[in-house]
Formats: sequence, C-alpha cells, structure tokens
Amino acid sequence: MSRLSINQQTVKQLSLPELIRACTAVGVDAVGLWREPVAEYGLVRSAELFTSAGFSVTSLCRGGFFTAADPADRRRAIQDNRAAIDETAALGAPVLVLVAGGLPAGSRDLRGARAQVVDAIAELAPYAAERGVRLAIEPLHPMFTSDRCVVSTLAQSLDIAEQFPVAQVGVCVDTYHLWWDPDLDAGISRAGERIAAYQLADWTTPLPAGVLTGRGQIGDGCVDFPAFTEAVLATGYTGPIEVEIFNDELWKRDGAAVVAEIAARYPACVGTAS
Amino acid sequence: MSRLSINQQTVKQLSLPELIRACTAVGVDAVGLWREPVAEYGLVRSAELFTSAGFSVTSLCRGGFFTAADPADRRRAIQDNRAAIDETAALGAPVLVLVAGGLPAGSRDLRGARAQVVDAIAELAPYAAERGVRLAIEPLHPMFTSDRCVVSTLAQSLDIAEQFPVAQVGVCVDTYHLWWDPDLDAGISRAGERIAAYQLADWTTPLPAGVLTGRGQIGDGCVDFPAFTEAVLATGYTGPIEVEIFNDELWKRDGAAVVAEIAARYPACVGTAS
Repeated sequence: MSRLSINQQTVKQLSLPELIRACTAVGVDAVGLWREPVAEYGLVRSAELFTSAGFSVTSLCRGGFFTAADPADRRRAIQDNRAAIDETAALGAPVLVLVAGGLPAGSRDLRGARAQVVDAIAELAPYAAERGVRLAIEPLHPMFTSDRCVVSTLAQSLDIAEQFPVAQVGVCVDTYHLWWDPDLDAGISRAGERIAAYQLADWTTPLPAGVLTGRGQIGDGCVDFPAFTEAVLATGYTGPIEVEIFNDELWKRDGAAVVAEIAARYPACVGTAS
Repeated sequence: MSRLSINQQTVKQLSLPELIRACTAVGVDAVGLWREPVAEYGLVRSAELFTSAGFSVTSLCRGGFFTAADPADRRRAIQDNRAAIDETAALGAPVLVLVAGGLPAGSRDLRGARAQVVDAIAELAPYAAERGVRLAIEPLHPMFTSDRCVVSTLAQSLDIAEQFPVAQVGVCVDTYHLWWDPDLDAGISRAGERIAAYQLADWTTPLPAGVLTGRGQIGDGCVDFPAFTEAVLATGYTGPIEVEIFNDELWKRDGAAVVAEIAARYPACVGTAS
C-alpha cells in the first residue's frame, strides 16, 4: 500500500478530516488534493491537517485552462496558475497537474489553442521551479479535446514537456485517458523521467451524458492495470500511484467504503510490479 | 454539389424512395447505404431503384465486428462480412466500410483484439477484390475503442491497410473520428491513395449518454472542414464526400429539410478546395 494515494475527487463526499480517517483505516497515508475543497477548508489549515496526520500530498489538481480568445483572459489564467503553484508549494505537494483547456468558444483553431498552451507553460515553468513545484501536463482523452483539453495524447504532451527542463515540466499519465492509444507503450517508454504523476481509473461503458463522470472504479472496466503499471514502473518511476475517479455512483456511496474498496482492489490491479 | 453524397443513416427517417426524392430536389445524386435498410427494402430492388434514378451508391456500411473470444463467433463474422461484400458488389458500390469491433466481453487484451482484425482482413481482402469491392478500414474515435472499434487512429488504420494491396484495402477518413488527432495532417498525407472514403460530421458537446448519437450537423461544431478537406484533396483523392451524421435531433426533423440543410451548408464547409 506504500505507493497508493487517494485523489480526493474520488470521494468528494468526504471532508478533509473524513478523508484522512478513511485512508488511515486502510493503511493509506497519501492523497491528491483539489484546489476548491482546499480553499474551502483553508489552505494553511489544510496543510497543517495533513502534516499533523503524517500524510503526504502527492499532487494538486489543477492548473491549466490556458486557452482563450481574449488576451486578458489568458493573462488571468496565468495569474490563476501562479496562485495554484503557490498553493501546491504551501501544501508541500511536488506536482501541480495541468489540464490545458479546450478550444476557445466558437474557435476551430486547434493548432492555435495548442500554441497557447506552450506559451503559458513557458511562462509558468520557471515560477514553479523557484517554488519547488513541478508542472505535470495531463493529456486528456480525445473526447475532451474540444471543451476541456487540447492535449490529447501522451506523445503530444511529451512534445510540449520536452521543450522544458525535466525537473520543471513532466507529464501526468492517467490510465483512463491513455489506455486506448496504440502507441501507448512507446509513449510510456519515451516519457521516462518525464512521468511526474501516475493516476488510475478504469474505462467502463456506456458513458453517461456529458461523459465527465463515467470513470470506472479500478477493476470494473477494461484497463489492463498490471500491464500499464509495469510499463510505467519500467521507466524507473518511483512516485505515488494515485487513484482518481469521477463517478456518480461512487459519489453516492459511503466514502470510507469506497476508499476501502480501492485499497482492497489495488494490489490485484497494479500486480506484482509495484 | 458533384461530390456530395448523403449517407442514409443521416436521415434514417426517410425510406429509400424518399431519400432519392430529397436528394434530387437539391441536386445530389449519390448516397451511402447501410445493410439493414437495404435488406429491408430488398437488395436487388434497392440496386434497381438507385440505378434507375441515376444515382451512384458511394459506400455500404458496414462490415467488420471481427473481434470475439470464441473462434466460432469470429468465423460467423467472416461469413457475415462475405455477405456484406456480396451486397456491396450487388449495389455497384466501390467500397465496404469496416468497423473493427471492440474488445470481446470481459477481455482487456487490446493487442489480441487488434491482431484479430488484421487476420480477418487478410482473409476477406482477396474475396472482396474478386468482386470489385475495396475494403475501407474506419478508425473510430477513441471513445469507442472498448465497445465498437479497436482501430482508433488514422496511423493505426494505415498500419493495417498497408499490409495489403492498395486496390484491395484502404481507409475511411471521417472528420468526426479524427479531427482531434495532433498527427492528423501527417496521417492524411501518409494515407495518400489509401483514402477509400471521406465522411463528414461535426463535433459538438455536450455528448449525449452513450455518445453514439451526438454527431453534429456540419457547421454546428468545431471541425475545421475547409482545412480538413483541403488536406484530403491534396492527396489526390477524387472520390465522393459523404455526410454521415448520427444525431437524435436530426432524426426527429423532416428528412428532406435535413438533406436540404446539408446541401446548403456543404459549399462553405468544404471550402474552395472541392
């Protein structure tokens, strides 16, 4: 269980103290956090809570959303990402996950939007590095390209990350977004030390309307987690393995029971590799 | 309008004679057909109907669904695809569109399923060629990988197609499935003479539950049709441009009005390229 981290969005029905109790009950002492619930509980108070419980915060979600038609909007996004970097540092988390943003409203200029992402990261990477925060570009499944993330494949995220020092910019490898890719093995192998975060969720169908909240509990779908994890660990990745699931059914259940179910399924999912 | 073809699934509320009338009213004389409504109307009767109206049938949908755990099921799929090839020939259509099939139930073996697709095409390609039918492998959007089509990118479909003579096996390039791909331009350029069919549908969000019937009317979404079409035509592609949309809202409307709307929007969508 030493590498397992529970992303709080998986059990967003839990308060931060409840999350700590649910994790502790099953021997987990690492969590991924989101900005909004942290802000609600209080940034300093959240940091103290996890520190005093002996927990590590493995990542903060999320920065990004860089794409906008209006330069003033892009500037506001940069400012907001600076704040996200500050929060990541305050929580002692090593990684801020970046979701690039989709096409600006009414735009069909995918190439232009992708260029905006590179420009924004170029501006933010040194700021993050000064604060000990590594940026992790997360490619999202291509069904989110238009409205959420114009970075859609691992290869594409590496094309961006490799323009920056490896200590400053990596990628977030999420099974849910990448499992389908015929070039996955080559991509993971190429990623190597660029892997800044590794997240698990399963792929299940049918997808719900809007598709955002259809991620499956690990083991419920068709992702080959042992093979995927073996490939990631073969790169030398020694970081946490974070379970991040958005699922309406899981959110309706008792959060502690969901955490316990993840912990119970985790060994079989990741296999002997971890 | 000389290259525009209306795929009948776009206006499945229309009978075959109604489809001919709706197309004729706006100067369109080409259609893509589906096996089920053709069987219902009668294969020979359908062929005679379109021939006597001076229409060309640009493609038949669809063969494929090769992936199965049980060898007997795979054998049945091959037999059914032979029938689909015969039907394509009987309709005088040059192309049978192949949708590979998803993961077999309970399977997580994507590599194995993809190998089954190659095996099936190897068996079918000579049979099709003898009957004057070209097979068109259609990569489907990665949101369909698990339940519908393990061929998810243009590059992957070309990796398969290129194992066979160009006259026997090509690819179906559909804007809906491929627009998001960062390697799209390279893929289209590489495809060259392998492009056996070119289909249009737009990408709109939010996606409906199940995601199958959320394709947008051309012009309603974020696909850059002029650029996409220019790239396809730059390969030397001289075939039809088929509009194939699955959309609950379009199916509720008067089918002839939908065909007229497509014809009205088509010139701006494909730009000066065609």
